[in-house]
Amino acid sequence: MEYNFSRAAHNMRSSAIRNILSLAVRPDIISFAGGMPGDELFPTNDLRELVATLTEKQVQEAMQYGPTSGYPPLLEALKEWLRAKGFPVDTNRLIITTGSLQAINIIGKIFINPGDVVLTEDPVFIGATSAFKSFEAELKGVPMDADGIDIAALKAALALNPKFVYVTPNFHNPAGLSYSPQRRAEFIEVMAQTNIPVLEDDAYGELFYSDDVKPLIVPMKTTAADEQRYFYSGSFSKVFGPGLRVAWLLVPEAVYAKAEVCKQSMDACSPMLSQVLAYEFLRTGKMQTYIDQLRTIYKVRRDCMVAAVRRECPSEATFVEPKGGFYLWLKMPHGVDEEVLVRRCVNEGVVFVTGKTFDPDEHPNGYIRLSFSNTPEDQIETGIRILGEQMKQMMA
Amino acid sequence: MEYNFSRAAHNMRSSAIRNILSLAVRPDIISFAGGMPGDELFPTNDLRELVATLTEKQVQEAMQYGPTSGYPPLLEALKEWLRAKGFPVDTNRLIITTGSLQAINIIGKIFINPGDVVLTEDPVFIGATSAFKSFEAELKGVPMDADGIDIAALKAALALNPKFVYVTPNFHNPAGLSYSPQRRAEFIEVMAQTNIPVLEDDAYGELFYSDDVKPLIVPMKTTAADEQRYFYSGSFSKVFGPGLRVAWLLVPEAVYAKAEVCKQSMDACSPMLSQVLAYEFLRTGKMQTYIDQLRTIYKVRRDCMVAAVRRECPSEATFVEPKGGFYLWLKMPHGVDEEVLVRRCVNEGVVFVTGKTFDPDEHPNGYIRLSFSNTPEDQIETGIRILGEQMKQMMA
Repeated sequence: MEYNFSRAAHNMRSSAIRNILSLAVRPDIISFAGGMPGDELFPTNDLRELVATLTEKQVQEAMQYGPTSGYPPLLEALKEWLRAKGFPVDTNRLIITTGSLQAINIIGKIFINPGDVVLTEDPVFIGATSAFKSFEAELKGVPMDADGIDIAALKAALALNPKFVYVTPNFHNPAGLSYSPQRRAEFIEVMAQTNIPVLEDDAYGELFYSDDVKPLIVPMKTTAADEQRYFYSGSFSKVFGPGLRVAWLLVPEAVYAKAEVCKQSMDACSPMLSQVLAYEFLRTGKMQTYIDQLRTIYKVRRDCMVAAVRRECPSEATFVEPKGGFYLWLKMPHGVDEEVLVRRCVNEGVVFVTGKTFDPDEHPNGYIRLSFSNTPEDQIETGIRILGEQMKQMMA
Repeated sequence: MEYNFSRAAHNMRSSAIRNILSLAVRPDIISFAGGMPGDELFPTNDLRELVATLTEKQVQEAMQYGPTSGYPPLLEALKEWLRAKGFPVDTNRLIITTGSLQAINIIGKIFINPGDVVLTEDPVFIGATSAFKSFEAELKGVPMDADGIDIAALKAALALNPKFVYVTPNFHNPAGLSYSPQRRAEFIEVMAQTNIPVLEDDAYGELFYSDDVKPLIVPMKTTAADEQRYFYSGSFSKVFGPGLRVAWLLVPEAVYAKAEVCKQSMDACSPMLSQVLAYEFLRTGKMQTYIDQLRTIYKVRRDCMVAAVRRECPSEATFVEPKGGFYLWLKMPHGVDEEVLVRRCVNEGVVFVTGKTFDPDEHPNGYIRLSFSNTPEDQIETGIRILGEQMKQMMA
């Protein structure tokens, strides 16, 4: 039988990353590919303990349909947690989403008509581009430098009258960098002269690796005078477990109203067991304890990878040192084609993702993404040594 | 700030059912409104026990991203479970979805272009119409009689060249009825003369209340010679817990390929903790035990409601006795406006949903939906007595 698929189906981006990720789970391969927490780092004992101490009513709630907007105690606890961080929770509404990808999807669905332009950073999170393309958006990537999005290029791209601008100012996936305070201020100023909203994705915002970074990574939603322009998404994926699929959107009332109806037609409500557990994780303070542990562990891995790359790779392979998050975004020296490099490295037992995966137009860009989040230090050292050897051989 | 929403956002159906459902959870109201299992019926001890006996590896898997298609052991167990029921699992692929609403959403997204016609039954599950409308489909409802969809009306509607036909042949929500074997055969025969696929929603198929019903409710996916036309969706929502958000689609390979990329852009993967628990629930046989318990309990409630309606309501209020599922679909006698009736009943402490909620065009249709699934017998008797009194007063 022949099937007559929709234009959206034909426009969906197949996941170029899939083969890489299937390699990434082979035990004989050292993986810098996955953008995920390490399995061994999950708070499995906390999870068991939280389940064991749920009341009978909570277990029932965990198994029943819940409100589309989310489990009410979680919404309340999250609201206070965000309030303490300076978010304008009283002039916005929270909605729980099934992962932050659903948050991105909802914003895409309620704003994008086929052919509309959406601005993203270049490079950009592949999940976001795949969502936006599924709504038949025209993506326009805006380049970044070490301080964040390029303001002149942003101004030029805004002339395309995009439906919204999608940015990840903190610990960018894949670029690893964070916007400087000055760049944030410039971004806010430029956007304030338009009527274009901003989707601010902050999935990694809690994962900073020294306290002096904290004042530099303040969400624009908390500082912009016109905060109603900013749709803020956060997630439990990186600070509890992505498998639970619990994230959130903080948006103005008018956007919330559309988002709620949209989500209602998508999956009715997010998984309630996950939400009940996320609530307890937050309420009991276990989340903050766990975040602190993660920061310590990821900092060691980040330091290990940064040192290994500096030691093992050619000096022409440059990068901005990540101050948090999961990724090191490595520029290829002249003469090193990253597609050839990854094939050689896989043969030697190391895998990572090449830059074109994160290019809005899927063009090669001369970068690779190295994730340090789910690889212990000894494997990081071995893997980066192999990577460096291959690069040097290719340059020789 | 003004927001420039998409056409899809403007086209989304706001949930007319919402105010009713908020009444439904008031403890002083007897509710026949919610299409959900009763809170007190959930296998909460099973859930606690399953979590307590998970291996460390399983808890890690439950917290980690999983494959978009689903948790592999669950896919495998479900495949064998479906094979035993006669499903063509070797010529189709399974994909786990975040509730069966997501399954409906995925089929909508990969088939519907704005303006495309989708045929549904009339009445129809509100979640499906809200999903299809969000893709800007034109819905055409096909009436039903006691044996299922009206074949003459179906033939006429097929001339509109719909993208697909959405049906719920077993224990229909809201109509309570099931297609007769002959009607199924007629439906299959009519569809075989077209190139139009069928989405067969079987969320309630396990909930039959006597063994002689079982041979009558055989899914068309298992019997049609052209089974590749049929996209079959099933769910754990009614036989484990809807809050877990685990359902599935069994579809031909070509549809699977689009569905997987589509889901990848929607929420990456369904909640893993829920999937690990669904797997254990199925593997350990606890699911079958629980289904048997539910059948016994729901049968008593169904019998109680059927007897109460026959006893308390005017004889002009007719219905097809439901052989399974959650719903009794009651036709209003002449002179009883269901919108007036529901307001009067709410004043007296009883709530239900009026038929227009389930009309593809949201027109009043002279029916009400009474759910017996989450109301104990004493409340069913009291509630139906009040309902009958109000109907009689309105007819007097």
